[in-house]
Amino acid sequence: MEYSCSAYELKCNECGKSFGNQPLSACDDCLAPLEVHYDLEAVRAEFTREKIAAGPANIWRYKALLPIPAGFEPDLPVGFTPLVKAKRLGKRIGANNLYIKNDAVCFPTLSFKDRVVSVALANAQAFGFETVGCSSTGNLANSVAAQAARLGLRACILVPADLEPAKILNTLVYGARLVRIDGNYDHVNRLCTLIADDYKWGFVNVNLRPYYAEGSKTVGYEIVEQLGWKLPDNVVCPMAGGSLIRKIRKAFNELIALGLVEDKPVRFFGAQATGCSPISTAVKQGTDYIEPQRPNTIARSLAIGNPADGPAAAKMIAATNGWAEDVSDVELASGIQELAETEGIFTETAGGVTTAVAARLYADGRISEDETTVICITGNGLKTTDAIANRYEFDRAVRPRLADFAEYLEELDGVREPEPELVEV
Amino acid sequence: MEYSCSAYELKCNECGKSFGNQPLSACDDCLAPLEVHYDLEAVRAEFTREKIAAGPANIWRYKALLPIPAGFEPDLPVGFTPLVKAKRLGKRIGANNLYIKNDAVCFPTLSFKDRVVSVALANAQAFGFETVGCSSTGNLANSVAAQAARLGLRACILVPADLEPAKILNTLVYGARLVRIDGNYDHVNRLCTLIADDYKWGFVNVNLRPYYAEGSKTVGYEIVEQLGWKLPDNVVCPMAGGSLIRKIRKAFNELIALGLVEDKPVRFFGAQATGCSPISTAVKQGTDYIEPQRPNTIARSLAIGNPADGPAAAKMIAATNGWAEDVSDVELASGIQELAETEGIFTETAGGVTTAVAARLYADGRISEDETTVICITGNGLKTTDAIANRYEFDRAVRPRLADFAEYLEELDGVREPEPELVEV
Repeated sequence: MEYSCSAYELKCNECGKSFGNQPLSACDDCLAPLEVHYDLEAVRAEFTREKIAAGPANIWRYKALLPIPAGFEPDLPVGFTPLVKAKRLGKRIGANNLYIKNDAVCFPTLSFKDRVVSVALANAQAFGFETVGCSSTGNLANSVAAQAARLGLRACILVPADLEPAKILNTLVYGARLVRIDGNYDHVNRLCTLIADDYKWGFVNVNLRPYYAEGSKTVGYEIVEQLGWKLPDNVVCPMAGGSLIRKIRKAFNELIALGLVEDKPVRFFGAQATGCSPISTAVKQGTDYIEPQRPNTIARSLAIGNPADGPAAAKMIAATNGWAEDVSDVELASGIQELAETEGIFTETAGGVTTAVAARLYADGRISEDETTVICITGNGLKTTDAIANRYEFDRAVRPRLADFAEYLEELDGVREPEPELVEV
Repeated sequence: MEYSCSAYELKCNECGKSFGNQPLSACDDCLAPLEVHYDLEAVRAEFTREKIAAGPANIWRYKALLPIPAGFEPDLPVGFTPLVKAKRLGKRIGANNLYIKNDAVCFPTLSFKDRVVSVALANAQAFGFETVGCSSTGNLANSVAAQAARLGLRACILVPADLEPAKILNTLVYGARLVRIDGNYDHVNRLCTLIADDYKWGFVNVNLRPYYAEGSKTVGYEIVEQLGWKLPDNVVCPMAGGSLIRKIRKAFNELIALGLVEDKPVRFFGAQATGCSPISTAVKQGTDYIEPQRPNTIARSLAIGNPADGPAAAKMIAATNGWAEDVSDVELASGIQELAETEGIFTETAGGVTTAVAARLYADGRISEDETTVICITGNGLKTTDAIANRYEFDRAVRPRLADFAEYLEELDGVREPEPELVEV
């Protein structure tokens, strides 16, 4: 179960030992995580602004710097989500150059996990796995189930038993086997490590993790390209396992190394829910030692109490002069509402966390108003409707007559004001 | 409330009378619907394959043939959704050249309504409306609410009182005023006509309807461009008001007239739910007279009993040698599941109808296996989860131990088989 490739291979993050390309996530010497390393010189000619711009409108335009096995012909459009200027949200929180990277509408299953899964499954096929799976807090489950269905792979997906109904249904509908585990994400994840080993299955975020994680770099590539090949000043990013925020920086660094973007300092800000905030706690304490927590938050997609990439994320945030913050469940629900009301983007709980954290960072003066800041929204609000459903009341139904409608509006607003004179254009 | 424009204007579909550009949907002489007419010669130089390809990866690449007022600078990415080859669904239903046009992941609110709303609101702003609205079966409500929020317009949206909870929440979250009407869509729509007139509001599918409907053409432009500037043999399209299917053909005809695609016959097939099938009934009876129906189907986004563009749609389908079919609520739920299991696409009830109808058309020999056929999927399954939730049971939770997992699998599958030898690559 190995393939050879001249452009990239796995190496230990700590001791630098090489492992070629195989389904393996940790160094057998020092137990540190493995990561994909590229021969940047070998891809320099393939990875130019012009070649990228001529590529498809999806993440495969960046495939020269993704660990894609030779012969893999991607045919599923993934990613290349909008980066939108957020003027109205910016006005509310005091930001003049604010952007939303909107993975709430990521292809094909509406979260950034589509990016990592597509890269992982390309490798799963190269390694010959016929059954794939994952441990998941929901979005990953949806994406593995959907993409495995399209590829004709069997999928077995393990989730905490208390997952949101929409995320469960949105896994089952693709015909995946879903196993609900009586425990939290960290229990599920440990079990998956054992299963991957014992059953010889390809678990995207376990034995395929180094390949999987590289898919997150595409968020960084897209941000830079969509800003007109410029780096932002700041990135605000949710943290669950701590991988995404690191990979966005890796993407920026690769683009700098290849001369595709001008170097400048970029600060990284991590966002967590207070009910599961091991990384932000570490950052605030000025350490990269992660004290595991027992999650207690409605932001289930961030509820990883013992994050695999937590130490590296905390270290990286500090190194960029960034910061990490966490917000309560009430604040995250307000964050969901605020983003929807100002920018028309309906995000899930994690996006509510990120929006509320961004507002706090501006309020606390950690980000100043004229800097260019990108907020990463990673998932869709339709998957976590329970988080905000209790904020709205369904009003009484109105009879379908103009007089009844007018009476109803008067009840709500008081007597009708004359409409202001319309402007002729 | 009028603007002048040399490139396009409203004309009556029946008598040809010109109306300039104003918020008006019907001819004051003959009461027939108004439609936007272009001076194709005037846009010929702007609407070339090269200029389109150099445009943004969204519907604004086609803006030379959309009714966009001078000075409007679109900044919200909308549309340009994937067209994917559906090999696995094709295999199940006997189709060798099947494609899915996947608006289940349309930007920004996950249905094709985003296309029409963005064009309508550009005009609403030009006409000076400060309050916009719509009558809606759900998807339109979501899109108007979201896009109005981003533009800072007030939104007042009227829906049938029994709409799916996810669609209601996904309207309220954007801060729109939502009025639930005690009646079906046709009652709601009639009321909106009165309100638009009395309150001087811009209702996207009432007084802004001619502009609104043009947005649907972008589905047709995208299909042709994504097929490599070729026309398909067949299009299978859901029908509610009957507008989308006509506008796809209008797009094809414009591309032919401008020499951007080679002319050939394209057959159009309409899909409805049996519980609300006024158009398919007419097509099957060989008439374009639409007998209104009282809707009784879970496909609420298709539940328009008296479709505004029904007669024109029925006539057009017959003229292209197409056909129309309708399927039961049970069949549509199977259609949702089938599309998800084969292609990893989770669609709403309307998409289940379209998938099930497509399968029927192949089974009945109305479409032959080697023809190139595009199925239009128009909305996302997360908005109508109730339609399929009862098809799945949540199994018992399993303790997070390998032995318990193995025992659980054995319960389901019988004693564990040895894993097949993995292929080395």
